[in-house]
Amino acid sequence: MKIEDKHYHTIWQQQGNPNVVQVIDQRTLPHQFIIHDIHTPKEAASAISDMVVRGAPLIGVTAAYGLYLACLKSRGEADLKSAADLLKGARPTAVNLAWAVDMVMQELLSVPKRDRAVVALAAAERIKADDIEVCKMIGVHGLALIRDLYKQKQRTINILTHCNAGWLATVDWGTATSPIYHAMEEGIPVHVWVDETRPRNQGANLTAYELVQQGVPHTLIVDNTGGHLMQHGMVDMVITGTDRTTSQGDVANKIGTYLKALAAYDNDVPFYVALPSSTIDWSLKDGVKEIPIEERSPEEVTHISGWAGNQLQQVRLSPEGTLAANYGFDVTPARLVTGLITERGVCAASAAGLQSLFPEKTPSNG
Amino acid sequence: MKIEDKHYHTIWQQQGNPNVVQVIDQRTLPHQFIIHDIHTPKEAASAISDMVVRGAPLIGVTAAYGLYLACLKSRGEADLKSAADLLKGARPTAVNLAWAVDMVMQELLSVPKRDRAVVALAAAERIKADDIEVCKMIGVHGLALIRDLYKQKQRTINILTHCNAGWLATVDWGTATSPIYHAMEEGIPVHVWVDETRPRNQGANLTAYELVQQGVPHTLIVDNTGGHLMQHGMVDMVITGTDRTTSQGDVANKIGTYLKALAAYDNDVPFYVALPSSTIDWSLKDGVKEIPIEERSPEEVTHISGWAGNQLQQVRLSPEGTLAANYGFDVTPARLVTGLITERGVCAASAAGLQSLFPEKTPSNG
Repeated sequence: MKIEDKHYHTIWQQQGNPNVVQVIDQRTLPHQFIIHDIHTPKEAASAISDMVVRGAPLIGVTAAYGLYLACLKSRGEADLKSAADLLKGARPTAVNLAWAVDMVMQELLSVPKRDRAVVALAAAERIKADDIEVCKMIGVHGLALIRDLYKQKQRTINILTHCNAGWLATVDWGTATSPIYHAMEEGIPVHVWVDETRPRNQGANLTAYELVQQGVPHTLIVDNTGGHLMQHGMVDMVITGTDRTTSQGDVANKIGTYLKALAAYDNDVPFYVALPSSTIDWSLKDGVKEIPIEERSPEEVTHISGWAGNQLQQVRLSPEGTLAANYGFDVTPARLVTGLITERGVCAASAAGLQSLFPEKTPSNG
Repeated sequence: MKIEDKHYHTIWQQQGNPNVVQVIDQRTLPHQFIIHDIHTPKEAASAISDMVVRGAPLIGVTAAYGLYLACLKSRGEADLKSAADLLKGARPTAVNLAWAVDMVMQELLSVPKRDRAVVALAAAERIKADDIEVCKMIGVHGLALIRDLYKQKQRTINILTHCNAGWLATVDWGTATSPIYHAMEEGIPVHVWVDETRPRNQGANLTAYELVQQGVPHTLIVDNTGGHLMQHGMVDMVITGTDRTTSQGDVANKIGTYLKALAAYDNDVPFYVALPSSTIDWSLKDGVKEIPIEERSPEEVTHISGWAGNQLQQVRLSPEGTLAANYGFDVTPARLVTGLITERGVCAASAAGLQSLFPEKTPSNG
């Protein structure tokens, strides 16, 4: 997508210097646009653990490039395994990360040493290209839903989203944002309500930034606002992402998603979740009972960073003596989800719905 | 209640100098405790409009003291009326403010000039004392609910609250917090989940501060978190305040209250609203349709203030080019409210419930 009218992916090899991988530093957005260089697998791991890059798909691609950088230095099995462990340990709970690393490692160890750099680069490029294609197809299928609403209402379609399931979390297009960008390209008038998404404010920092750069009309709101908007007919649909989806259609997404889903249900507003099928954990059924919820640093709640005129400044929000809790995600039960938008199409958030699109994944009745 | 172990009201006459009214400056809490002096009705109006003081009950009391200060300077009808207009204009939407000013003015104009200062002071003190008594009785009735839960569960009772309906919004005790403070005094173990309450963060700034000072165990959370906690049995009851209550029990409270009520309903968590009966607007029925929602400055969403080590610092959260919307309140329909805690007792959130406690207010069927 575009930044200052130039097309970017979130990760690429430096032009003229294929031994350097470059990413957009997401820690200083929206205030500063900085390109971050990665030279070694260790730097790739740091980029992941320090959240220079975030978002399940992008983390996986970054780790794959990290293995390519490892091959440039040493192609021995022991060195590659140690790089793989370093990369997998960068964010231990990210399922996509381990998946990408294991897949590339399997390919590398099955070819002679001399071919490993080429094979690693090809694997990283393939994972990157696959992600772009999956996100594009989510957009194509989601676009059909927006188009239907537009035909029916014949006015600007108001879409609410939570957190950043945008292109900055992937390589291009994003997941929840992809239908919106496709609608823009088709000329359908859309307006996006952007939840700021405390505590890390990925909505205010990243989704709003993406929409500014893409020229998509949008309005920033605090996370408390969505219910009021839906009560007053100001939201036509909700689209969010998901970090983990169960085989019966429950979705674990950024904390607060469940509250928006409740409000959508209470006001007959369609609530869609956009996802690459790689986020589906076919081994899980009941998301509320089975998905462990990550607790993050209380400092993300008690403090916040913003732009103080010429630099990023952290300020403390709460009194001394107040402790905070910081649950990163919540689970929205499938009963509140109107549909799942996947790269293969839209289906009901149910075991039957998911099996209709992914028949090869039908769980055995064992 | 207590600040640094000393008992305070939110407003009082300066000791040894009855011509000065003092209030706790709520703009710098929780970072700095500053006592703000008010010498004139103009300064009283500024204290209200600049939000040195906030909360419907406290605003009313401040305005009443403002009229007392007016009488110290001139007791002529024209001057008093001009002071009254100034005070009423300080926050035009605050129903309590106009009510308090009109009541005191009626008393003043009915007595000779020479008695007006004494009568104004007596009226201000009476309104103040009434507020303390009403908040105390809300606490006594709400305490019974907490006591019942404690008898049943025999462990710490977890109470979630939104915004600040604490003693800083009143003169003493608060509304939503009064049952909690009474439970503490009775020795019932309680723990409070404090919603930070974006955009103005009255939960993080004021409720957390109150609870620190009172020694009440509490945990600060972002507004997105309550649903997750309720899904996992970590909330035993919700108590919020209300700015305006309809005759059928709908409540308009700080934006985001509706989302918490939906989550409470979805998880069978009792959701109570604590209110002085002065917030009931007997002329209204359907809150969602009839209560106008104040839109406030977008800057409260795009920017935030916090403590930067040695001073309050405002930082920008969102990108240049992003607009924000800032709805101050939302309406929680009575169907989601388990009960209303008033100074006369607890009743169902319904026309019948309210009429059982306030039979004299039964609307005529005209």
